[in-house]
Order: sequence, then structure tokens, then C-alpha cells
Amino acid sequence: MIQILTSPEELRLACDRYRSRNRRVGLVPTMGALHQGHLSLVDTVRKAGATRVVLTIFVNPTQFGPKEDFERYPKTLVEDLSLCREKEVDLVFAPETAALYPPGYQTHVEATEITREFEGRFRPVHFRGVTTIVAKLFNLTGPCVAAFGRKDYQQWRVIETMTRDLNLPIEILGSPTVRESDGLAMSSRNRYLNPEERRRARAIYQGLLSARNAFTAGERKPLTLEQIVRSSIESSFDSIDYVSLADPLSLVPCRSETVERAVILVAAHLGATRLIDNTVLGEDDLLLS
Amino acid sequence: MIQILTSPEELRLACDRYRSRNRRVGLVPTMGALHQGHLSLVDTVRKAGATRVVLTIFVNPTQFGPKEDFERYPKTLVEDLSLCREKEVDLVFAPETAALYPPGYQTHVEATEITREFEGRFRPVHFRGVTTIVAKLFNLTGPCVAAFGRKDYQQWRVIETMTRDLNLPIEILGSPTVRESDGLAMSSRNRYLNPEERRRARAIYQGLLSARNAFTAGERKPLTLEQIVRSSIESSFDSIDYVSLADPLSLVPCRSETVERAVILVAAHLGATRLIDNTVLGEDDLLLS
Repeated sequence: MIQILTSPEELRLACDRYRSRNRRVGLVPTMGALHQGHLSLVDTVRKAGATRVVLTIFVNPTQFGPKEDFERYPKTLVEDLSLCREKEVDLVFAPETAALYPPGYQTHVEATEITREFEGRFRPVHFRGVTTIVAKLFNLTGPCVAAFGRKDYQQWRVIETMTRDLNLPIEILGSPTVRESDGLAMSSRNRYLNPEERRRARAIYQGLLSARNAFTAGERKPLTLEQIVRSSIESSFDSIDYVSLADPLSLVPCRSETVERAVILVAAHLGATRLIDNTVLGEDDLLLS
Repeated sequence: MIQILTSPEELRLACDRYRSRNRRVGLVPTMGALHQGHLSLVDTVRKAGATRVVLTIFVNPTQFGPKEDFERYPKTLVEDLSLCREKEVDLVFAPETAALYPPGYQTHVEATEITREFEGRFRPVHFRGVTTIVAKLFNLTGPCVAAFGRKDYQQWRVIETMTRDLNLPIEILGSPTVRESDGLAMSSRNRYLNPEERRRARAIYQGLLSARNAFTAGERKPLTLEQIVRSSIESSFDSIDYVSLADPLSLVPCRSETVERAVILVAAHLGATRLIDNTVLGEDDLLLS
């Protein structure tokens, strides 16, 4: 039976009960509007040994900038719960905003260096909001393991950094991006796209694929690889925030002449919708761990 | 038998073992140079139900400003350990700096509003460093209860705020200030005072006492109460950072004409030494809880 809670203290008690019966809690934090990408995170924590899965649904206001899409972020709670039931999630936590940010709330958690570029530059308050809410959810649920989608590549690395730095005893997993049949990374924000934008949206993945192919064929110049992605996106998207190669762990932008291992990070606008995607070049065991 | 550890992972394992045997861990974070004030914190967590006491000794660099006394902060580890043994502390954690801040460290925890005035204004990075290290120690030890001295009144309230905001399941206790026979609040920094400064130092407590007496006699004007403290300190100290009345919970400075409940906060310099102290006026059950 799925349990649906809205109170932080009830969530804590439920997780305490799981642990007192030696269940291993796996946490899947989401903002709802669930899709197959989210559901794959449930598989990821189970594969890592979680015997109870807690999925949280909370559109976290502190990670949205004042001009961003907080107000119109898709809310599909009924469908979300039915997907969670099918997936045999044990507990869904779907609190009101004031339950996590009551009057007088004033604390944040922030990782500095890894948030400087890319999403951190274009969404200045974003990661501070993410690390704060994730720290809170970690403290409420005490999971052994938590999973995040690699579609939000920098977010995954930021959370990993925060978890390590704050000595939280939680295994952070980055789960591979789940894609639509044409390669578009699944995202709750894809719902914003009209049919024509939806067709054009595939250009991001096509660009990333072209760059991967060039890398496999021997291309090692960051600027050339970036240009391959950029030219694929340029004609289909309305504007590009960034296309950039970075170190896959530190997220420091590649400044060298050639590169053997990197993540290509992309953010671009299609009408009123902002999409992000990425791919890793020269993946190795460290990265896939 | 006292256990002395320097490795964060060994500390975590030791605390996990305590909990697996249903011991209630009480945490006493210190920077060493222990005195009776610190030892009273051990009593405080025991009285609150701790059956295992972990005392940490770590001069935390991130809570010192560039011109502050980090380098010369007193280090008396041998004496500290012998005091902990006498006090039957179960575990002392005394790590090297790099064990808690390894290369690449980049995360901080910060409470904003309650840190704006007083120590937060005069020591801009101080509380960010405090909340960060305390969050780390909380995550490593998983205590039921932790105690802080009310001599550092604002610090106690800041940690309480951070703990509540981040949903940490830890009871935060403020332990009454322990004083020397002439009223000087015990502090590791009292060691900096030469005999003549030590004599002059008692003026802080005398000023606070005079204000308390005036309050008991009916004086309710914040400015008058502040002036009573200020005139006591002025002649003995070299300079005053602040003498101010504030709300005892939010630390918002009193701006009203009269006040029924307040904390008087003082920071002042005596030679190269900076001392702080405080007293609460109109204490009630809420405050003493």
C-alpha cells in the first residue's frame, strides 16, 4: 500500500519506522509532473539496495528565479500518484510550501565553485535553492541512497558535492537520461512545447550526437566540438544560453587545446521554454560509478 | 574508557555503534582550551538524556575572519583530554583541519536574518563558519541533543535556527553561562588577558548586573538600559563594538520605546582581546526551555 504524506514530521516518523525495521530507505526527490525519467530513478535506488522507496513531490520555490516558471510549473498530482502506485513506491511526500518554508525560515545551503558556471550563471539562485531543499529532504528521510537524473547533470554534481562536504552518509546516484524516441531528453518542461517547437526540440540531442560521433572519430578540440553542437541547435532554437565543454567532475570549463574527457552542457530557448541537455565524452569507470 | 578519534569516518562508525545499542548521543562541540563552562555542557546533555557524550575539539578556521585570532587561539589538548577523562566523556573527536575541509571543499550553511546584527555585523564570516561546521558535526555524530553555551548567546540562537530550518532532528540546548568569582564569563579567550586587563574585564558583568537591577526596579527604556551597561564598560575597556538590546529569540534590535523582554548583548575590546557577554531581561518559561 502506498502511503501519501504531507507533514514533515509524519514523513520523519515513517522513515524512522522503516529504519527501525532495518529497511534501507531510497529517496527520489522530484518536482512532480512525473515521466519515465523520474520512474527510472525509482529503479536506480532499488538497484542500489533500497528496500523502501520514498518519492517526494515539491515544486521548490527557492530554486526558481523571479522571472522563471515557478507559477506555471506543471502540476499533475493525480497522475503522479497513480504512476507511483504502479511503480510500487512505498511513500509519496507531497507537502505544501509552508510546511517546508514556514514563517521565519532563513537558512540556506550552498556549494560555491561547482555552481559558478552554466546553470549557476544563468539561474543565480537556482542551486542554492536546490541544495537547501535537498539537504532538508535528506534530514527528514535519512536515506541510504538518493537518485538524481543526469539530464540535470550539473545539479547531480552539485548535490554530490554538498553531500560529501557536509558529511552526509548518503550515496548519491546519477541516473542515465531517459529520452523520447527522437532523442529529446525527458523533462517536465517538455509539456510547455507546442507541436512545432516539439519537432524543433530534437536538434539538441542531434547536436550532442554529432559531437559524440566527431569525438569518437578523433576530434579533440573543445571549440570544434562545441561548434558542432552549436550549429545543430542554432537553426532550430530561438536562442542559446550556453554550449560548453567542462570537466565532468568539477564542472570547470575546458580551457585546454584538446580534451580527453568532458561533459558537453547545453541550455537553449525554444519560444518560452528553456531546455537543457548534456552528454559525456570519454566516459570512464570513475564517471559511471 | 574514553575514546579519542581524529578521523571523521571513525567518529561516524563509533556513533553508529552507540545508536545501534540504543545509546542516546549527546554532542558538545568546542574549540578546546576547555574550562568549566565547557564541562557544564557535558552535564547539560546528560541531564537531557544523553547516555553517551561526544565532545569535539576543533579550532574551526572558517569561523575566523582574516584579522582575527585563529593562529593564536589557545591550544591545550593534553589538559583538555584530562578534563574530559575526569568528566567521563565517552568520545573526544579532535581532527586535523584537512579532515573536515579537504581539498575541493566548497559548501557552506548559512542562516541569514538572525546573523545580521551584533557578532554577525562585526565578524562577517563568523556565523557562516559556525553553522557549516556544526552541521557537519551533526551529520557525523547524529546526536539526539547538543549543547551550546549561552555566553555565545547569538551563536546558540543561530544554531537553533539552522537546526530547525534544515529539519535536523536534534534538540539544541543553551546552557547557562558559567562565571568566575568576580562575574567574568568563562571564555577560552580570557587566557589572553594580562593581570591588569583581567581586573578591568569584570566591568562587563558589573554593567549587565546594573542594567538587570534597573530593569527589576522598573526601568523599561532600551536606551537607558543600554546606557547603564555602556557607562560601566567605557572606563575599563579600550573600545566597545556594541551594547544593544534585542529580542531574545529573533535577535532583532529593540526599536520600541519600552521593552518587557530582551537580551542585552555586549562586545568590547580590552587590549588585543575581544570579550562578549549578555544577560536576559524578563526571562520567561519560553526562554528558559
